Amino acid sequence: MTSSSLTIPDLIRKKRDGETHIRAELEHLILGYTRGEVPDYQVSSWLMAVYLRGMTPQETADLTLVMAESGDELNLAGLPRTVDKHSTGGVGDKTSLILTPMLAALGLTVAKMSGRGLAHTGGTIDKLESFPGWTPELPEERFIEQAREIGLALVGQSKDLAPADGKLYALRDVTATVDCLPLIASSIMSKKLASGAHTVILDVKVGAGAFMRTLDDGRALARAMVDIGSHAGRQVRAVLTDMDAPLGRMAGNSLEVLEALSTLRGEGPEDLTELCVALAVEALAAYGEEEEQAEARARATLQDGSALAKFRAFVEAQGGDGGYVDDPAMLGVAPGRAEVTAPSSGFVARIDALAVGRAVLALGGGRERKGEAIDHGVGVELLKKPGEAVGAGEAVLRLYHRNGRGLETARALLEAGLSVAETAPEVQPLILGRVN
Amino acid sequence: MTSSSLTIPDLIRKKRDGETHIRAELEHLILGYTRGEVPDYQVSSWLMAVYLRGMTPQETADLTLVMAESGDELNLAGLPRTVDKHSTGGVGDKTSLILTPMLAALGLTVAKMSGRGLAHTGGTIDKLESFPGWTPELPEERFIEQAREIGLALVGQSKDLAPADGKLYALRDVTATVDCLPLIASSIMSKKLASGAHTVILDVKVGAGAFMRTLDDGRALARAMVDIGSHAGRQVRAVLTDMDAPLGRMAGNSLEVLEALSTLRGEGPEDLTELCVALAVEALAAYGEEEEQAEARARATLQDGSALAKFRAFVEAQGGDGGYVDDPAMLGVAPGRAEVTAPSSGFVARIDALAVGRAVLALGGGRERKGEAIDHGVGVELLKKPGEAVGAGEAVLRLYHRNGRGLETARALLEAGLSVAETAPEVQPLILGRVN
Repeated sequence: MTSSSLTIPDLIRKKRDGETHIRAELEHLILGYTRGEVPDYQVSSWLMAVYLRGMTPQETADLTLVMAESGDELNLAGLPRTVDKHSTGGVGDKTSLILTPMLAALGLTVAKMSGRGLAHTGGTIDKLESFPGWTPELPEERFIEQAREIGLALVGQSKDLAPADGKLYALRDVTATVDCLPLIASSIMSKKLASGAHTVILDVKVGAGAFMRTLDDGRALARAMVDIGSHAGRQVRAVLTDMDAPLGRMAGNSLEVLEALSTLRGEGPEDLTELCVALAVEALAAYGEEEEQAEARARATLQDGSALAKFRAFVEAQGGDGGYVDDPAMLGVAPGRAEVTAPSSGFVARIDALAVGRAVLALGGGRERKGEAIDHGVGVELLKKPGEAVGAGEAVLRLYHRNGRGLETARALLEAGLSVAETAPEVQPLILGRVN
Repeated sequence: MTSSSLTIPDLIRKKRDGETHIRAELEHLILGYTRGEVPDYQVSSWLMAVYLRGMTPQETADLTLVMAESGDELNLAGLPRTVDKHSTGGVGDKTSLILTPMLAALGLTVAKMSGRGLAHTGGTIDKLESFPGWTPELPEERFIEQAREIGLALVGQSKDLAPADGKLYALRDVTATVDCLPLIASSIMSKKLASGAHTVILDVKVGAGAFMRTLDDGRALARAMVDIGSHAGRQVRAVLTDMDAPLGRMAGNSLEVLEALSTLRGEGPEDLTELCVALAVEALAAYGEEEEQAEARARATLQDGSALAKFRAFVEAQGGDGGYVDDPAMLGVAPGRAEVTAPSSGFVARIDALAVGRAVLALGGGRERKGEAIDHGVGVELLKKPGEAVGAGEAVLRLYHRNGRGLETARALLEAGLSVAETAPEVQPLILGRVN
């Protein structure tokens, strides 16, 4: 029986019985679904079969390619040494703001589409909108031209990239088929493949605040995504990072921009700086650069002002006021202040990343539903990080609020997410591993 | 978490992870689906999880009860010693026409709803409509009254029995979740439980022409259905029967009625007679009768005319002409005749039941779609049964056709389904086992 003669129930049966799909079968199913020809109820049955029977690496790569080809695709073939970056989602993760100008300063090209924040996770576009005048909307030719000129262009997702992923994700969400490795990997990578960059650097978060709870799970996801890249002829490299506590010390849009700017000046928190350097090293390694040299070059961009200069040029190219880059104090931070203090003396044992993310949301700095307006000035500052000593009653977290909006909810969330121990806790290293 | 607080995705997740549902959860899912509140795509995902994870006997029984209670239920509590019968579907299976009057003659009560034929399987209602004037439509009170008076009433399915089953079956059919033991068992038994009889006798067909291909599969299905009965407080007993070749010698509506009438006169084919007696013995055993006595009493109804008398009374009570029972030659058999002959001398090795069923369909004796009119007079007669000796060119099958309609298709199907061997084949016994 040739693949074209298989009906949708035949394909479901095949996966149900643990067999392996060939690419033409996945095209029949997934493209048919995207066009509205295959109904939800057949795809959800197939998704459950995939959940319980799994997929081979080749099959996962084929699925991803079919999803990537289900809609528009960005053509970056005319740009030199393109790099894209993806994080599996974190709190206080302003990495893209720092890494992308570093990469531009290193001679690589970043022409990237980014998302907005939803629920407790922030979005790069929201953070950049802290700069008055900055726009995430560029015509495609201008976007490409700017990437060629500056090495960095960053826009909102305007094109219909991998529409199959959006449809499949919505269905998985209501049919208990979300947390399935090949489906997660193909969902992330389909958008990355459609986005056109030759090299993709992945930051796979692991821990209580992340989608992947254990290092083993994180490593398996990273491996699946790197394998998809190999099958698709792209360079994909992943860094596994701890995500129990927020990254850096700031959470909230303008606060994170402030922290990103000080990091671009070489004065950022150590964990954040380390992660940005590590991700930049992977990008350079993907283009054949030797590691020790790559690390020295990456660090230098934060010391010699070259990354900051790229960032300034990028903000201005997209309509923002470069003055804010030079004088970040001008960025509007909400005037209200409140603090969460240590209940006893000892060491900060835990600052729950999810609690911090939800507190920012409560203060008005995030959105529950797509399209809601947000307050860029509110947020949370970690005065102490896990492992640091603290006295009883000493401030651990600072809240930046506007007229007390959401303050009590945010405070309650943070108090519940904070714990202080008598002895110094063992603090995980930030970078837990690499997969390439 | 109490069951009522579980969402539908929670329930899907539970089955996906191999856990066991409690009854309230199945009510939430199945009754919500029947009312149209739970969408197809969630149920199909759950069905695939059931397919791959299975269900415990208690869970299967709970599912069946919930399905049985999803619509109307017949109340037969006022009738004595009620019996229902179900066959998992066969070709040339006129058992119900013979068994039900036997049961009435034995002092049991049959108040039964039957279906019409579809595709290659015949339906009891279609066969009975061979009697001019006979109607499958009775008001409910009259149906109960007739069952009380004669011990036998047989109508088409007018009530909305187990509507959950119809909806689930249609969904399973397009999502590769049909051949799953707990789903098959609950589908059959939900209708039987809703039909109200205290005792249910099951004829589980096994073999190439049946849904269950192996004896092990058939036994497992029988066991699952008998267990559902125990959980539901009903008496369910099953007979496992061979279904490689058609039962008896006739296939086609009026032809099967003719064969049923001769069997009711004690002059029927041995296999058909044996099966009817075996099923009647199970029904009597369910009401505590000792087996040897039950068998003697059951056989006697075919010798002393008591079963035939019940059948005549039943046909007349539902508007049919009893004269046709006394003089079956009056029943309209199509006038056209054709034969399929043995390609070589030897022994009939195989007469494929499915091929015979499809031949009857081709001749106009069945329907492809619900609601189509059928020709009661056409069909196929087995002049030889598997195991019987045959000479080269000797007729093995006789076709009864009307003006040659469908004759060439029917002949081709039958020729392909017939094989003759040099040595006598080992013929399976008809009754392969019992489960109770």
